[in-house]
Amino acid sequence: MNPALDGIAPSIIRAINARKRPGDIDLGLGEPTLRPDPRPFDAATAWVREHGLPYTANAGDAKLRAQVAAYHAFPDRGAAENVCVTIGSEEALYLALKAAIDPARDEVLIVEPCYLAYPKLCALEGIRHRMVAMDPADGFRPDAARVLEALGPDTRMIVLNSPNNPTGRVWPESELRALAYGLAARPGEPVRVLSDEVYRELYFGEQAPVSIGALWPHSLVAGSLSKSNALTGLRLGWLIGDAKTIAAATKVHQLVNTAASTFSQVVAMEVFADPATLAAHRPHYAQRRAMLEGWMREHGLDYAPIEGAFYCMVRLPERWAADSLGAAEALLEHHRVLATPGIAFGQSGEGWMRLSWVAEENALREGIARIAELFRDAP
Amino acid sequence: MNPALDGIAPSIIRAINARKRPGDIDLGLGEPTLRPDPRPFDAATAWVREHGLPYTANAGDAKLRAQVAAYHAFPDRGAAENVCVTIGSEEALYLALKAAIDPARDEVLIVEPCYLAYPKLCALEGIRHRMVAMDPADGFRPDAARVLEALGPDTRMIVLNSPNNPTGRVWPESELRALAYGLAARPGEPVRVLSDEVYRELYFGEQAPVSIGALWPHSLVAGSLSKSNALTGLRLGWLIGDAKTIAAATKVHQLVNTAASTFSQVVAMEVFADPATLAAHRPHYAQRRAMLEGWMREHGLDYAPIEGAFYCMVRLPERWAADSLGAAEALLEHHRVLATPGIAFGQSGEGWMRLSWVAEENALREGIARIAELFRDAP
Repeated sequence: MNPALDGIAPSIIRAINARKRPGDIDLGLGEPTLRPDPRPFDAATAWVREHGLPYTANAGDAKLRAQVAAYHAFPDRGAAENVCVTIGSEEALYLALKAAIDPARDEVLIVEPCYLAYPKLCALEGIRHRMVAMDPADGFRPDAARVLEALGPDTRMIVLNSPNNPTGRVWPESELRALAYGLAARPGEPVRVLSDEVYRELYFGEQAPVSIGALWPHSLVAGSLSKSNALTGLRLGWLIGDAKTIAAATKVHQLVNTAASTFSQVVAMEVFADPATLAAHRPHYAQRRAMLEGWMREHGLDYAPIEGAFYCMVRLPERWAADSLGAAEALLEHHRVLATPGIAFGQSGEGWMRLSWVAEENALREGIARIAELFRDAP
Repeated sequence: MNPALDGIAPSIIRAINARKRPGDIDLGLGEPTLRPDPRPFDAATAWVREHGLPYTANAGDAKLRAQVAAYHAFPDRGAAENVCVTIGSEEALYLALKAAIDPARDEVLIVEPCYLAYPKLCALEGIRHRMVAMDPADGFRPDAARVLEALGPDTRMIVLNSPNNPTGRVWPESELRALAYGLAARPGEPVRVLSDEVYRELYFGEQAPVSIGALWPHSLVAGSLSKSNALTGLRLGWLIGDAKTIAAATKVHQLVNTAASTFSQVVAMEVFADPATLAAHRPHYAQRRAMLEGWMREHGLDYAPIEGAFYCMVRLPERWAADSLGAAEALLEHHRVLATPGIAFGQSGEGWMRLSWVAEENALREGIARIAELFRDAP
């Protein structure tokens, strides 16, 4: 057996999810509860009737690759050759790390709190990695200076995620510019930024978030239709980057998966035919977020600003400042609400709890009330 | 960049395919030209309308896993926990190598001629590997003794493919039993067999081929709906093995891809609801094979026995005994027929040419006639 697998810790999220009982309120779930538009599926089924279901090229259908490139419109990376169509953004992250990093030499710097698949993928591939934490005392505010200070002589890639899971923070253009300037000022081989933008369409400010891909040419951007269009089960994502890196990523993709599902790609081409549909669910989330904030304020909960995605980090009372797992267990055991301990997103998440607020309205309101009850009862 | 990618040669198949002109006869294609049954797609689209499209569990829907296990019915490996649903059989091969092999210690032995993704996957993962060739003089007859003789002290896995691409040979039960007996007689840690059975349903003998999975408990079996059901673009396959290895493979699968497309899995569950549909295309191929053999005999072509899959290895005239690429180039250039040089399947394929006979009937007949013409003209 491959010993690299022994070093990969089982998922805390999965362990606590497994303890959920029927009737429990689920604020742990990381996927939309909205139903997707079925029309692209009707169109894709009609397509199969006409064309069968052959493979596409390894990197994906050329039309879809061009659609994705045009949608992101990064300078100098706006052509089909800049896109590899992947099995969700998860495979895009894997391909970027596998293709662009030399495990014998390079180090990866991961911005946390974060989805722990980033360090686990590094562990799987034997890639040296370090974490750099945003400041919990500052509500996990995205901070380029912290990232730049943490760079080491062997750092060849920074992994960041904006809008962020679990913090709900969005990297503002000013901080992304500061990051790009800082990287540009470094001598030697440029440091890449792998930017996970799977929540790209779910923002609550006036302006759509800017991507580091637009500001730093050595960026690799991962995206998907999973969250924007409630299509997690479509497993359709993409990696965008310079043509040389995309060609290398496609070589890996070809050997590991051949290509993404042709059916999923036809569905995606239908969606991209009207890119506005990628933003169709945003008003729903904006409304839900406003309700959530109302209930949290009403109950006096302390939480990090919710700027994007569908998560919220709630600060735990002192009793659980070093035991978010204990808080989540108490919440589940005594109040029948499932939430995710902050420690599941790295050490900097300790003392916090992540709420996913995709749940149905009444469940969400009741869940917040029960969390407030738990916190009141805590010494 | 990852230097492992530099060591992976570009595909010869891809290079020659890229030279095909409109109007050329294509006997190079590795996928069915039949149309798939569209009814499972209608059913799956109705399912999406009702359920949306959430993720399945990482290893796949429990019902589908149980269906696949029951279909293969290997002793002691017949439960859902013995199956990981994958992105086609390609990912199943990757997962088996990645999870079951320790790159620092283990060696893999690959039976050729074969699909060169096997050694390329080993190169990608830094796994030591050697090839063991079946005898071209014996029509590439599957030969357990050759494999057993080639085992080394560090060999921990044998990769074989039956029915075979490119040879069309099927490992008979007697040779598989000889292989299993030979492996059982070896002291020390058992050697696994990774068996690629993606052409399982396409056989032309009386009896369905026996799987090594039924004879050797340390087998890992890769399969898919790609070839049997003309669903290459569905990207739906599976890996079957002992529960511990499948759990390790699922850990890799989760990090690399999360899960297979839920839509593809619903289509697959529809197909497995009546497993006879997996064999529905066999009569078509049997008829096509009979025609092909008639035409080849008529033209006096020398070829390896076609026992399964939809390929045929044709022996080249002396002039090209060491230059199958030259023969394929001459065939394409002067006779406008695309076929695959045997060297694309390992050194033992040199001096042969692989025909894929999924082409339309008239194209296939004309293609054979032109190959005979090329051979006649050769000195």
